[in-house]
Amino acid sequence: MKKLIVTLSREYGSGGLEIGRALAEALGLPFYDKKLLSIAAEKSGFSEELLRQAESKATNSLLYSLATSLGVGAYGPDTLSLYDKMYLAQFDVIRQVAEEGSCVIVGRCADYVLREQENCLHFFLHAPLEDRMNRAIKEYGDDPANIKSVVLKHDKARANYYYHYTNQKWGDAKLYDMTLNTSRTGPEGAVKMLLHYLETVKAV
Amino acid sequence: MKKLIVTLSREYGSGGLEIGRALAEALGLPFYDKKLLSIAAEKSGFSEELLRQAESKATNSLLYSLATSLGVGAYGPDTLSLYDKMYLAQFDVIRQVAEEGSCVIVGRCADYVLREQENCLHFFLHAPLEDRMNRAIKEYGDDPANIKSVVLKHDKARANYYYHYTNQKWGDAKLYDMTLNTSRTGPEGAVKMLLHYLETVKAV
Repeated sequence: MKKLIVTLSREYGSGGLEIGRALAEALGLPFYDKKLLSIAAEKSGFSEELLRQAESKATNSLLYSLATSLGVGAYGPDTLSLYDKMYLAQFDVIRQVAEEGSCVIVGRCADYVLREQENCLHFFLHAPLEDRMNRAIKEYGDDPANIKSVVLKHDKARANYYYHYTNQKWGDAKLYDMTLNTSRTGPEGAVKMLLHYLETVKAV
Repeated sequence: MKKLIVTLSREYGSGGLEIGRALAEALGLPFYDKKLLSIAAEKSGFSEELLRQAESKATNSLLYSLATSLGVGAYGPDTLSLYDKMYLAQFDVIRQVAEEGSCVIVGRCADYVLREQENCLHFFLHAPLEDRMNRAIKEYGDDPANIKSVVLKHDKARANYYYHYTNQKWGDAKLYDMTLNTSRTGPEGAVKMLLHYLETVKAV
């Protein structure tokens, strides 16, 4: 098999993580998601706990959304710059694992980080809000009480930090080689379509 | 075969017209693009020539872009309202042909017009600007001298009238069941992927 890097961006609750893992398994490739955090911690000197906290703040906090959209922020420039350093540490790791060999990477602006990389395909997975709310309750154990706002907050945070680091609109079809509505295909159908795609463009 | 409506939205120069036609042929389905104009003319009482002129102004004129984005416009409310009437006549025809049976429809906000329609799948085709410029010169015979601005003007006009009639962002992945970068797949690969998709979701 030729070298192949796949990046998967996904809306919260679209099943992207599960689909990415199944794709990596089908292709026999290493799969990177949160694992990138531990590697970044090891290589950057930031403790994994600090990275995890920063990531959790970054994806959950409305203040972070405001901060990044304003470009300066409620956390103050020092704190933001710490986030930036930690994201940049992850971006370095993304570049390193892509350099080392074929793999599947989920999230973390990997599509942007690897935009110049050869043999690299970029996918985006999404689904209607209602379906994602149900999946988040059933599969991730999220609290049904405020599930709509939780899902929307995740979407917003992902869109915000994507924009912050790439200056591009997360989920804009033009950024990806293929996008899929996973409610229409189901998780297995999505994996099937990704494999069809790789065959069609002779990437495998 | 079950009833199946396919809508294809596409960037100028992405090969969407050719791909849509090949898909319709492979499925043995009627294909609607400019043909909708003649049908709308026949049914609405507007002359086909007037509809064609309006469409050509709508997709080529910077003034129209400004007009629709401002919501009132340099053409004045009367002229705009004529455009609106003519588009609405086309939307009626889209609903009618979809009601009548399976088909493939390219462009004209058909994805939005048929958003509530059952057995209806929505696709968006795009490609990098450079490739679209080359295709427009080679395949459509566009003048190479100012090709970049021509392609960008078409994109802008499509995005503007899509926004004008739907209040949504043309090319936002979330609006489509699948989107494809046709430079990566090639036209034949894109048709192949569309057929794979229809099989995967058991639409055919």
